[in-house]
Amino acid sequence: MIYKSRIGFRFSDEFLDVFQTFNCLGDTENPEKFGACTVQDAKEAIELAKSAHQSYKRSSVEFRARFLTEIANELDQQRDSLVEMFCKESSLPAARGNSELDRTLLQLRSYGAYLLNPSWNRPLVSEIPNSPFKVSTELRAIGPVAVFGSSNFPFAYSTAGGDTASALAAGCPVIVKAHSMHAGTSYLVAECILKVAQEVGAPDGVFSHLLDNGFDIGEELVTNESIKAVGFTGSIKGGRALMDLAAKRLGPIPVFAEMGSVNPVVFFNNELEKNSELWIDKFTKSIATDAGQFCTKPGLLFVPNSEIGTSFLKDLSYQLLVTEPQCHLHPKLFNSFKEQVDETFKWIPTKLPYHSQPVLRIVEAKLFLNDYNYYEEYFGPQAIAVQYESVEQLFIFLEKLQGQLTATFIGTKSEIEEQETIVEVLKEKAGRIIINGVPTGVTVCDSMVHGGVYPAASDSRFTAVGTQSIYRFLRPIAVQQI
Amino acid sequence: MIYKSRIGFRFSDEFLDVFQTFNCLGDTENPEKFGACTVQDAKEAIELAKSAHQSYKRSSVEFRARFLTEIANELDQQRDSLVEMFCKESSLPAARGNSELDRTLLQLRSYGAYLLNPSWNRPLVSEIPNSPFKVSTELRAIGPVAVFGSSNFPFAYSTAGGDTASALAAGCPVIVKAHSMHAGTSYLVAECILKVAQEVGAPDGVFSHLLDNGFDIGEELVTNESIKAVGFTGSIKGGRALMDLAAKRLGPIPVFAEMGSVNPVVFFNNELEKNSELWIDKFTKSIATDAGQFCTKPGLLFVPNSEIGTSFLKDLSYQLLVTEPQCHLHPKLFNSFKEQVDETFKWIPTKLPYHSQPVLRIVEAKLFLNDYNYYEEYFGPQAIAVQYESVEQLFIFLEKLQGQLTATFIGTKSEIEEQETIVEVLKEKAGRIIINGVPTGVTVCDSMVHGGVYPAASDSRFTAVGTQSIYRFLRPIAVQQI
Repeated sequence: MIYKSRIGFRFSDEFLDVFQTFNCLGDTENPEKFGACTVQDAKEAIELAKSAHQSYKRSSVEFRARFLTEIANELDQQRDSLVEMFCKESSLPAARGNSELDRTLLQLRSYGAYLLNPSWNRPLVSEIPNSPFKVSTELRAIGPVAVFGSSNFPFAYSTAGGDTASALAAGCPVIVKAHSMHAGTSYLVAECILKVAQEVGAPDGVFSHLLDNGFDIGEELVTNESIKAVGFTGSIKGGRALMDLAAKRLGPIPVFAEMGSVNPVVFFNNELEKNSELWIDKFTKSIATDAGQFCTKPGLLFVPNSEIGTSFLKDLSYQLLVTEPQCHLHPKLFNSFKEQVDETFKWIPTKLPYHSQPVLRIVEAKLFLNDYNYYEEYFGPQAIAVQYESVEQLFIFLEKLQGQLTATFIGTKSEIEEQETIVEVLKEKAGRIIINGVPTGVTVCDSMVHGGVYPAASDSRFTAVGTQSIYRFLRPIAVQQI
Repeated sequence: MIYKSRIGFRFSDEFLDVFQTFNCLGDTENPEKFGACTVQDAKEAIELAKSAHQSYKRSSVEFRARFLTEIANELDQQRDSLVEMFCKESSLPAARGNSELDRTLLQLRSYGAYLLNPSWNRPLVSEIPNSPFKVSTELRAIGPVAVFGSSNFPFAYSTAGGDTASALAAGCPVIVKAHSMHAGTSYLVAECILKVAQEVGAPDGVFSHLLDNGFDIGEELVTNESIKAVGFTGSIKGGRALMDLAAKRLGPIPVFAEMGSVNPVVFFNNELEKNSELWIDKFTKSIATDAGQFCTKPGLLFVPNSEIGTSFLKDLSYQLLVTEPQCHLHPKLFNSFKEQVDETFKWIPTKLPYHSQPVLRIVEAKLFLNDYNYYEEYFGPQAIAVQYESVEQLFIFLEKLQGQLTATFIGTKSEIEEQETIVEVLKEKAGRIIINGVPTGVTVCDSMVHGGVYPAASDSRFTAVGTQSIYRFLRPIAVQQI
């Protein structure tokens, strides 16, 4: 059997190529075979989405809330088979699969519930002076949205993930291009969405699912004039390519790309004096867990050049080196991590294939400023640490950083207050500031901002996580009448 | 004396070229001479804005509200000289100069006042379950903003206009590239802003004013990595050129371009039967006033092919032809209007130079669909009318329209309700829907949306008019702490 794409409620007829996913832990291809769809399939899915948009945009918020909730319920029903496929395709443990699925359900349910809040659509009414007219604002769904699943969150930032949940909540049909590394998980999730769409009576075309292991389908999705927005989670290179394609269209469209980040962490002396062990433990886990393949993994640590700073680094280094090697999601990700590490550091050999040893790379301050490789994201269980001599030097280091998803400060209350200019430097770049916590683990809530200045994200004015992500796919109109 | 650019509080040293503005009514160049600044001046203004950003972004809302109010007060103080220069450079009447200045003051004051509303910054706080952390949202100024003044609103959408007022309200320094057609008005307005900036103690660089009659300064403003957003009001060609430049940057930035629109109007029979004279009067004025040089001028009228429809068109045609010829803002705008008209229609000669005869061009339905020139914006006192045979034909016409700033419906309550699918077609394209009014005259209020689907505007999710325009220049960050 060959798994096929879904053009709305129907299956695609033919396929160009067959591909399989890979299990790094077993060092073997998974047995499932997936048919890569044609550009014509993509065009048909887009036409169907355009037609579904005519009715779905006008569906009631109650309908959409129910649709999202029922998708969550169906995914929960299928939990066992979903998590099994998730583990086979990602080499992540079942506990992670279950917790990521829980997060996915929470997103679907909370974005749906948010619509039932009467002020969700930011209603505004004004009177026109000396006239009988009133002007009132309506928020409208922007149109069909193309979603590109991420490699590292097969559930939460892929097929039924944050982009899909927020676009469907906004009233936009969604076409997902499955991530080829977890096509089977994506397929099963898509089946759940489509089953529910049919059950609740959503229009055909409200959701389509395209299987592909190349670039043509993605290009069609971003350049087709009937697609009105794009959601993407992945590399800077990939995100920028989509941004460039979208900017060249006859009618340019917004691309919400959540891309790379080194997630700087600044440590201060007094807090390390007080709680060194706590932070060693927390940062070991934050750097190493699930092979450090999180967009919010703390990748660059700024530690004072002091007795406690040096001792903290020694202990953190040690803890990471005694942490077991971690398995990568996919051979491609393993290989690109290994190559990138080898360019600047020495790769640490491991016994198991596709595994990387968690490690801290300590770089001398005088070398740090002059090598751009120290400012790059390494997508694996590694962090770079540099010891700063003074606040002035720290300031220079931070000024050189690009836009970030997160920036973290570990300090006592008075240290954080005293170093307000340092905090301000990173507030100018990051989407989220964490005081005395780790950056991994992005809470799904109203006030969350998962985004930041380019290249962390394509548009710093929006978040990819939390209920406010819905507003990416809505546009206001004013209705002026008596 | 040669008027020079302002690099913050200082004047530019040298200039590349000298240019003058033109008075179409007097058919003569105005005596004032303006020095075109150098790219180096632009770079210095940008550096100064970057430095001003460090403190201005952290100014209190009370400070910014006062700053905007004092600018309004100063402009009001200088009303006589401002309006005199406005009239010389635009050939518009003093009454229009005064009312446009009033609108400008209202924008400055109301955007400032909006900041004093405690919920202006959309505060959100969430608790993280099973943890002591709270996540709260802060809105932050995006950074230095480049503003390109419009040709047709020397006050309200230029130097101290909507883009400047909303960016300054958001906490962003502004660099204005003066529109070369009204450089003198722009200069005088800039002097008012800079005088107030010094008086209230705003940082040097919070505002700069660049005089230029070419394209190099604009290109520097949009491509310099320290500029973080662009505001533009003008043609599709000009706006798209800026969008393309911004998209190619190392770090792409948002361009808010408010561009072209034909502003379709759909008339229904019963309302015409009832109030034909009222609508003839209102649309004559809306098409002809100030030479129809409004981005919201009704440019395309869809009238039923019925006895009342035909009689309405005859009377509207007549009323426009007996309206006096209108003077254009500038010879360039006159010439491009004349050339564009001559391509598709016949130009109507007038006695006075740079004047155009208000006119309605009636196009046969069977010809209408096949010539794209009928769907184009004509920036002058002309509208195109077509008579539709049926709602089905009307639907086909409307489907072909591009994105619009406005769409207007003239019908009885029951006609509007019955033709809901027709209204929906245009809601899908336009930023503002007007029921039984004219599209010209955009009220400054909280609920206004002046924008729409591309090419009416570059990003349909934001408005260029009203208090909500402030959010174009703000980005949220989440602060996560105990």
